Amino acid sequence: MSEAAKTLDGWYCLHDFRLIDWSRWKLLTNDERQTALAEFTNLLEKWGLAEEQKQGSQALYTVVGQKADFMFMILRPTMEELNEIEMEFNKTMLAEFSIPAFSYVSVVELSNYLPADEDPYQNPHVVARLYPTLPKAKHICFYPMDKRRDGADNWYMLPMEERRQLMYSHSKIGRQYAGLVKQVITGSVGFDDYEWGVTLFADDPLQFKKLIYEMRFDEVSARYGEFGSFFVGNILHAENIPQFFHV
Amino acid sequence: MSEAAKTLDGWYCLHDFRLIDWSRWKLLTNDERQTALAEFTNLLEKWGLAEEQKQGSQALYTVVGQKADFMFMILRPTMEELNEIEMEFNKTMLAEFSIPAFSYVSVVELSNYLPADEDPYQNPHVVARLYPTLPKAKHICFYPMDKRRDGADNWYMLPMEERRQLMYSHSKIGRQYAGLVKQVITGSVGFDDYEWGVTLFADDPLQFKKLIYEMRFDEVSARYGEFGSFFVGNILHAENIPQFFHV
Amino acid sequence: MSEAAKTLDGWYCLHDFRLIDWSRWKLLTNDERQTALAEFTNLLEKWGLAEEQKQGSQALYTVVGQKADFMFMILRPTMEELNEIEMEFNKTMLAEFSIPAFSYVSVVELSNYLPADEDPYQNPHVVARLYPTLPKAKHICFYPMDKRRDGADNWYMLPMEERRQLMYSHSKIGRQYAGLVKQVITGSVGFDDYEWGVTLFADDPLQFKKLIYEMRFDEVSARYGEFGSFFVGNILHAENIPQFFHV
Amino acid sequence: MSEAAKTLDGWYCLHDFRLIDWSRWKLLTNDERQTALAEFTNLLEKWGLAEEQKQGSQALYTVVGQKADFMFMILRPTMEELNEIEMEFNKTMLAEFSIPAFSYVSVVELSNYLPADEDPYQNPHVVARLYPTLPKAKHICFYPMDKRRDGADNWYMLPMEERRQLMYSHSKIGRQYAGLVKQVITGSVGFDDYEWGVTLFADDPLQFKKLIYEMRFDEVSARYGEFGSFFVGNILHAENIPQFFHV
Amino acid sequence: MSEAAKTLDGWYCLHDFRLIDWSRWKLLTNDERQTALAEFTNLLEKWGLAEEQKQGSQALYTVVGQKADFMFMILRPTMEELNEIEMEFNKTMLAEFSIPAFSYVSVVELSNYLPADEDPYQNPHVVARLYPTLPKAKHICFYPMDKRRDGADNWYMLPMEERRQLMYSHSKIGRQYAGLVKQVITGSVGFDDYEWGVTLFADDPLQFKKLIYEMRFDEVSARYGEFGSFFVGNILHAENIPQFFHV
Repeated sequence: MSEAAKTLDGWYCLHDFRLIDWSRWKLLTNDERQTALAEFTNLLEKWGLAEEQKQGSQALYTVVGQKADFMFMILRPTMEELNEIEMEFNKTMLAEFSIPAFSYVSVVELSNYLPADEDPYQNPHVVARLYPTLPKAKHICFYPMDKRRDGADNWYMLPMEERRQLMYSHSKIGRQYAGLVKQVITGSVGFDDYEWGVTLFADDPLQFKKLIYEMRFDEVSARYGEFGSFFVGNILHAENIPQFFHV
Repeated sequence: MSEAAKTLDGWYCLHDFRLIDWSRWKLLTNDERQTALAEFTNLLEKWGLAEEQKQGSQALYTVVGQKADFMFMILRPTMEELNEIEMEFNKTMLAEFSIPAFSYVSVVELSNYLPADEDPYQNPHVVARLYPTLPKAKHICFYPMDKRRDGADNWYMLPMEERRQLMYSHSKIGRQYAGLVKQVITGSVGFDDYEWGVTLFADDPLQFKKLIYEMRFDEVSARYGEFGSFFVGNILHAENIPQFFHV
Repeated sequence: MSEAAKTLDGWYCLHDFRLIDWSRWKLLTNDERQTALAEFTNLLEKWGLAEEQKQGSQALYTVVGQKADFMFMILRPTMEELNEIEMEFNKTMLAEFSIPAFSYVSVVELSNYLPADEDPYQNPHVVARLYPTLPKAKHICFYPMDKRRDGADNWYMLPMEERRQLMYSHSKIGRQYAGLVKQVITGSVGFDDYEWGVTLFADDPLQFKKLIYEMRFDEVSARYGEFGSFFVGNILHAENIPQFFHV
Repeated sequence: MSEAAKTLDGWYCLHDFRLIDWSRWKLLTNDERQTALAEFTNLLEKWGLAEEQKQGSQALYTVVGQKADFMFMILRPTMEELNEIEMEFNKTMLAEFSIPAFSYVSVVELSNYLPADEDPYQNPHVVARLYPTLPKAKHICFYPMDKRRDGADNWYMLPMEERRQLMYSHSKIGRQYAGLVKQVITGSVGFDDYEWGVTLFADDPLQFKKLIYEMRFDEVSARYGEFGSFFVGNILHAENIPQFFHV
Repeated sequence: MSEAAKTLDGWYCLHDFRLIDWSRWKLLTNDERQTALAEFTNLLEKWGLAEEQKQGSQALYTVVGQKADFMFMILRPTMEELNEIEMEFNKTMLAEFSIPAFSYVSVVELSNYLPADEDPYQNPHVVARLYPTLPKAKHICFYPMDKRRDGADNWYMLPMEERRQLMYSHSKIGRQYAGLVKQVITGSVGFDDYEWGVTLFADDPLQFKKLIYEMRFDEVSARYGEFGSFFVGNILHAENIPQFFHV
């Protein structure tokens, strides 16, 4: 058996993608739509309190193309809180006019390279990454992924040392995009259908393509990466919600 | 032909996942919703009698993410009883406001390592595992799986002795999680689309991820495991049902 | 080119799986439901005449889990009759409250091992198997399957003699279950998405699992079997139809 | 690069499969249903004119099993005409009570083995096959297919001469069924999801199974064939339309 | 790690495929339908202004077969504009009678073969291809694709020089179709589920088939191409919109 990678785990994470049922939304009166949006905005403000108190974080983006119209990314200390937030939204009036499109359950994850005698959960740099406040970048990119286990291309049969070297070289590509792309890795083994979720934030969406395409030539992706659906979107600031939902 | 593994088989098992149709649920009056929940609670109590009488067991959990809103895991002595329970729920008022999302049919299964001259069904440790009372852990994790049959990675072409050794080393990982994760293996060959269902119970959901991720580096999973969808959820105690369904 | 296997072919076969739309079914009055069930029962009786006259056979089972609520297996001399029966059911009142879930079109098939100078269609044992009256066993199991054509594991590239030996050893497993499991093989090349349908009948559903699992270690399944969805169910006798549909 | 096969191309082809929404169809009055069927019959007659004038051809069959209830196969000189016919049907009253189930876009295709100095489009035998009048056989079988490109089994990497020999031996099987099965090959590279559509016509549907099964042991299918869904049906003569739609 | 290919990137691109809900569309009065089409035509005219001002381009085609009824291809300088256009259409009256069928998000992409000391974004030939005005050809063909990463057939593990030679030979096939087929390549790594979208324009749709089929024998496609769904359609000029939507 290969030695298993050790992980550090932070906040639980829910990605929640929704379509809008525009035909039914239009059947409401203007007042009814205002009521629905006010309830939604109140919910966002309530969630914002958790972020202010460093008890979680969240992001709201539109999604380009037919896969979804908008998405939440929610970070919270417990699985129960994720479920409560999801249920809370499901019970809103706005939810009656939205259609679930895709979701992903995971937990913020870091690989542990610190000396064995140090408690990483006491290291402030580690803590900041395990319990992050999500950036307010203009664009988001999300995709789930697996490490491949296929014949001669089986990541989990590689010796730890080889995996470490491959990941080190892989991570160097990411570092070239420091300042351009911020990356949040979440682990989903046992929680959802792929092994990881990758969420990228950037002010220039072309940087998503450049980063992922460059990585694809690296052996970690080229031989061992299996990718799910890709979602890309634009930030939806609270002040733009009325315009987004205006019909 | 490789020698087939011998199995011991206990209660039949139905995993039943449902979504809630919140929009239609909200159209009911408060009284109607109370009536539906009272009927549902009565059903749960009736099912509970079977558990008290050691004639079965069941668990009710919420599910995080859009795959489902809640799930049952039901154990009963016969396939007919599983079907009756499923139909009984389908005919309730609450079922009119829920949408089938996924189900899995299987039977509690143990590998038989006892001496050939002993009747395992008389062994109290074996009996307790074949006819288990499901734990009331805070979290559940379910996924179906196959053993791979793909080119050089073909579990069913391995000699029995090699399979036995691989499984022994694999099970050692599970034992490290004793007290943290309780595992119920159910066999589904001939009953559903994968060969096994794996149901894990834990008070800390992170232990699901740690256990399954560690196992993935073991040859049994790394070379021979094929996994279906993963579901994770939080226990839904009877006393929390009103709050869960409150709109 | 490998020599093609010769087959004997009997009655055409339709497996037809349906879900019940319980919410809409409940909206009917008791009288309307009685009317629908009387029409359905009449149809079953009419189909039963064909069985009495050895002009076909049929079976009606419930299905455990969400894949379907009930299923028909219909055998008839022509493809036209299968289509008529399907249409006849589709036009009933009960069909308005059922939802198509899955179907499979095939023809009863036997491999021909008789001496070349004998007409197998005159052999009473062969005739009985090509035009069978389906057993009234307590349980049914159905799954479609292919023989694999994948790299080195390509059934259709094997010499006839090797296929014959593999199938002979495979069939010995089946014979160990004589009296416990009755098997009807139907061929579906050119008729549906897999190459064969396998329908098993047993009074103890655990025998389905034991038989299929034991076969999976045999090279025919281990290297060459590709399996579709598995369905398992309980017999639905005419006298139990009112109770099954009672709401 | 392997030398590409040359093709001759005739009429464009649309296979269009539809389900009937029986519940809603029954809600119409008898008169309304007659109106819908009269409109449909008129459309069929109009399409029939094109066939009389050798400007196309069409076939109407029922489909056995739940994949569809009926299907059209339409041949016309241009892609625009296919689209017009499709839209014309979509705008009928009958279309309101039918549900699209599957479609396939292709063009009649022949491989070109004629001497290079001859214009095949002037050869009457070639012309008759590129612009065929579809037979009125009792049964139809349709499936789309690809030539495999998978590791060592890559059709498109074979030298032209090897492909030619393999196809020659493959076509000999088809010729054994002359008079029993008529085959129309349509190419769909760039038009739909597979590379070819295969449509077979026969008065005895068992011949579909015998032909395709025998071919499956031939290397072209065994190593290089990838098959989509299979559809089988019975001819629906204009005079049987009232009975087919009668409720 | 293989050296990553460098790309030049132009306008962002949305392919948006829609089905028409003819049954509901027919329920409108003639006046209501005129109102919906007038609003749609105004939207197209507004989008046309961007094309006149070289701030984007768009195309409107019908789609043959059941996959969709019509499609947009939209080019714009930013991801935000794509999203606005998509939302603008979603909020129209016509959108209430259309059903999303498929979409694809990408960006116009060229491989960069210019001398390193030249800024390609200043080269007028490059600029014309990165920010193209889409042709008004009679037919369109769209499909997404990946470069394969499967065992020995792994594009991303090839040395840059080998990929360059393979692509050069591949592009020679395309050049033989100059004047017959115009090709727009868009990159979608990080934006959608495949790595590229290929959009072809031609006045003779047979040229799509000839081009793609010939390429399939070239090693780049034969060994390394993975293709998604193919869509083919006919141009829908503004003046033909009333007839297309007439019921």
